[in-house]
Amino acid sequence: MTKITTLIHCKDTSGIIASVTSFIHKNHGNIVYIDQHVDRQNGIFFMRSESEFSGDNFELVKFKSEFKSSIAQIYKMKWHMHSDDYRPKMAIFVSKYDHCLYDILGRYNSGELKVDIPFILSNHPDLKPIADAFKIPFHHIAYTKEISEAAQKKQLELLEEHQIDFIVLARYMQIVPNTLIERYQNKIINIHHSFLPAFVGAKPYHSAYKRGVKIIGATSHYVTEELDAGPIIEQDVTRVTHAHSIEDMVAKGRDLEKIVLARGIKLHVDRKTMVYNNKTIIFS
Amino acid sequence: MTKITTLIHCKDTSGIIASVTSFIHKNHGNIVYIDQHVDRQNGIFFMRSESEFSGDNFELVKFKSEFKSSIAQIYKMKWHMHSDDYRPKMAIFVSKYDHCLYDILGRYNSGELKVDIPFILSNHPDLKPIADAFKIPFHHIAYTKEISEAAQKKQLELLEEHQIDFIVLARYMQIVPNTLIERYQNKIINIHHSFLPAFVGAKPYHSAYKRGVKIIGATSHYVTEELDAGPIIEQDVTRVTHAHSIEDMVAKGRDLEKIVLARGIKLHVDRKTMVYNNKTIIFS
Amino acid sequence: MTKITTLIHCKDTSGIIASVTSFIHKNHGNIVYIDQHVDRQNGIFFMRSESEFSGDNFELVKFKSEFKSSIAQIYKMKWHMHSDDYRPKMAIFVSKYDHCLYDILGRYNSGELKVDIPFILSNHPDLKPIADAFKIPFHHIAYTKEISEAAQKKQLELLEEHQIDFIVLARYMQIVPNTLIERYQNKIINIHHSFLPAFVGAKPYHSAYKRGVKIIGATSHYVTEELDAGPIIEQDVTRVTHAHSIEDMVAKGRDLEKIVLARGIKLHVDRKTMVYNNKTIIFS
Amino acid sequence: MTKITTLIHCKDTSGIIASVTSFIHKNHGNIVYIDQHVDRQNGIFFMRSESEFSGDNFELVKFKSEFKSSIAQIYKMKWHMHSDDYRPKMAIFVSKYDHCLYDILGRYNSGELKVDIPFILSNHPDLKPIADAFKIPFHHIAYTKEISEAAQKKQLELLEEHQIDFIVLARYMQIVPNTLIERYQNKIINIHHSFLPAFVGAKPYHSAYKRGVKIIGATSHYVTEELDAGPIIEQDVTRVTHAHSIEDMVAKGRDLEKIVLARGIKLHVDRKTMVYNNKTIIFS
Repeated sequence: MTKITTLIHCKDTSGIIASVTSFIHKNHGNIVYIDQHVDRQNGIFFMRSESEFSGDNFELVKFKSEFKSSIAQIYKMKWHMHSDDYRPKMAIFVSKYDHCLYDILGRYNSGELKVDIPFILSNHPDLKPIADAFKIPFHHIAYTKEISEAAQKKQLELLEEHQIDFIVLARYMQIVPNTLIERYQNKIINIHHSFLPAFVGAKPYHSAYKRGVKIIGATSHYVTEELDAGPIIEQDVTRVTHAHSIEDMVAKGRDLEKIVLARGIKLHVDRKTMVYNNKTIIFS
Repeated sequence: MTKITTLIHCKDTSGIIASVTSFIHKNHGNIVYIDQHVDRQNGIFFMRSESEFSGDNFELVKFKSEFKSSIAQIYKMKWHMHSDDYRPKMAIFVSKYDHCLYDILGRYNSGELKVDIPFILSNHPDLKPIADAFKIPFHHIAYTKEISEAAQKKQLELLEEHQIDFIVLARYMQIVPNTLIERYQNKIINIHHSFLPAFVGAKPYHSAYKRGVKIIGATSHYVTEELDAGPIIEQDVTRVTHAHSIEDMVAKGRDLEKIVLARGIKLHVDRKTMVYNNKTIIFS
Repeated sequence: MTKITTLIHCKDTSGIIASVTSFIHKNHGNIVYIDQHVDRQNGIFFMRSESEFSGDNFELVKFKSEFKSSIAQIYKMKWHMHSDDYRPKMAIFVSKYDHCLYDILGRYNSGELKVDIPFILSNHPDLKPIADAFKIPFHHIAYTKEISEAAQKKQLELLEEHQIDFIVLARYMQIVPNTLIERYQNKIINIHHSFLPAFVGAKPYHSAYKRGVKIIGATSHYVTEELDAGPIIEQDVTRVTHAHSIEDMVAKGRDLEKIVLARGIKLHVDRKTMVYNNKTIIFS
Repeated sequence: MTKITTLIHCKDTSGIIASVTSFIHKNHGNIVYIDQHVDRQNGIFFMRSESEFSGDNFELVKFKSEFKSSIAQIYKMKWHMHSDDYRPKMAIFVSKYDHCLYDILGRYNSGELKVDIPFILSNHPDLKPIADAFKIPFHHIAYTKEISEAAQKKQLELLEEHQIDFIVLARYMQIVPNTLIERYQNKIINIHHSFLPAFVGAKPYHSAYKRGVKIIGATSHYVTEELDAGPIIEQDVTRVTHAHSIEDMVAKGRDLEKIVLARGIKLHVDRKTMVYNNKTIIFS
């Protein structure tokens, strides 16, 4: 049995759901999940479905090609089909903070995270021992304030050599160059240690302390050229009081960052995210 | 334009979604929402959809009749169709606590709750002034420990006279007789002041205090013959500490009770609940 | 028995707690609650205590005078003592939204909120029927964009005539004039319908929708001259998804606004708030 | 500078706080934190304080001895004083689940958890590689259904040899023998994968699924002879829906279990827990 996840978006009009579901049914697929969303402001239709195709006769290539030349053409759809067999290849970028890295690798090791991790990349050598303990290759590409052209080139080569599908910035303390952002659009997941859009930029816990907020948060989002302004995948918050120092907030925030990044990664891996107009649709 | 909400459940099999969506499409309906759930343990398929039918030619009676004799028969469906024009008739049962009543009537008055409230019924006269302030008829049916046959009869008469669709027990401190429960199956919503199934029965805050829990809750559920064991519609919780006395818990709990009951009522009014095997499916 | 709540702040130094507790003990008071906070950045000590004085011989005036000339002078304290007998006088300012007003009056009527409400003031006549239903005087002071000097004068007169202790802006859609802010420093409580400092200003739900956040919030804070920048008393949040329209957010937000404002009022009434450096200390 | 944390409980009476704070002040200590609780039902007073003693002349032994013969005797206190220099020795018991172990060791490695971990003990060999990766001794004591006397003896010997202060059961799937519970009273922390007292015993996720709850939880508690009935240290919850299978709940629950156990451990290490009448006082 093959399980296919289909993501579709197109101009909203009547009859799309009926057409798609009938097409799958005619091709002997059983729809086990369907969810849709209509952005009424922009008149856009979004849909995610999971279908099971039994028997040895199912050919994904042929199915795709027929979908393309019929339904997809009629409704001028943008669409993707993914077979559940495939494990996406995920690169992790880190600097010196280790809590998100430990969390991701723990989930990976216990089989919770269904990805391959070809390598961990860092601008600092500090976390190599963790990569070693989990037996994952570690590449240290040094750079100071800005990433040099040579370093950028080396990064891209590594990513392409390993056919990386998406990148996780696990508290990576370095601006990602635009070349990389363009190459991996909606495929670079960052964790920001604030409840965005509050406290954009560096040192959000300092700002939160100064403003005297009673709740702090964390946000996982896709990286875009504008800093901390990309489509939000997931957010969560926790309470703080006047008694929490900045250091206390940093400590409390670590648990948030881990969870919110892990949830963001999982939603991406499960193909439950779509991006439109710098916002995400997150399917259930 | 007519908006129809359709709730369906039947044995799970391939092709149901395609059949239903095609049927609606052929009848010139535009599906604006669809959600489904498959209970894999029991092999049951559940679906909720909202469709818009434009034009003057749409006849709900004819549409229903055709649905019944075609799709519904093929898949042996249990189904309901509701027109969004209809405002359900809701009776409120209260005793002496007023916080849930204030909350419901405030939401009703501001137009948030799209129901009619033909009357409020109570086994105590205390809350009549609130009913008066909101200009809603108040019926006091006195009984002591148990509700007498005469009182039961009077209750049923009131409910039938006003063609009540569903009943809300807004901290109603009286066991509901089985005749009423049978007559209004999955149509009586109760608020229990604990995170069920913890602390079933009376005085849950006392039990919570005694056990030293760090979180208390509230649960809205459909009433069944077994006390506090009916299908759960909604739950929420709030933190407490060792410093909270039972009275503090009661006070904190009031805010939970109001919100959790209001959400339960809204889900019911919006036809977002289905019940199967003493559990709810809550559509989004 | 008299119960006295004492709030103190002064430069942090060794021995303050011992001095204060010994003083109360020597005056035959029993300390039933004590909490303190040290702002280490600024070297400021904050303390809240509750003490019970039994017997008919206790004289608050004498006690205060001795405290002033001994402990308070030694440590150069700023301090307040409040007898629990006194019910603070609270004025409510509203415009057209009624949900916070219903919530506050429901709590007031059920005895949950231990205040007197001499009057409700509005720049619109719409909510008068609610004030009438709860039998509270309603004053309509009309003004268009800005509040005129005559209207300001009338406001101040009303507040002073009724010896108002603090003001609650229950979704009051009008800038409060600086004269009022200065006169009632840290005594005007506003509810802002966002998780401040995100989405400062008007239409925060629109901004939240546009940014695609996954969580929305509400904030109760003391009003200062800078808009939405005053000391935060309480905040809370709730989840939203891509499927929530702006109207849905407004509806979900109403429940947050009610709760967060009610908690802010309660903390103020219970003398559990202190303000320093535009931040609050919130005692437990 | 020496920092001393003091935990006290005794019969409630007037003057305790004044006596204790004056005693510390006279001994040149600076109180930087004080919190107290009065259990009014049982008339018991609880207090936690942190005091800093500067200078080379401070002698903890002498200070304790004077406290014992003066204040402690007067009020018949049960009390403990802990110097912040000392790192408690924590043993971890595991079986086959690794998520809590990964989480604890990650926190330990990054310096967040201020303990020593002399060894990890298990009734299964499966998690040895993790212990190895973190360079912590791993002891496998095999037993089938029940733990044999020989195995019990071996356990106790290990614990005593390493002068273990407290034990963490990190999803340890084995009943702890009473000899161990008695020996380490309020010093064995367990994580139960439900919102206790709901779903006591094994397979709580199965029970939660069956009951159709909308929220699941986790509870860290001290182990007592009665199963899952010991004093609760910390609880937290997360939302589930009808769409969550038991496996989904297990997966969601893992994140809860990790966080709730970690918080429980931290509160214990920071001496913020006191136990009375099978309930905890958790200081802030």
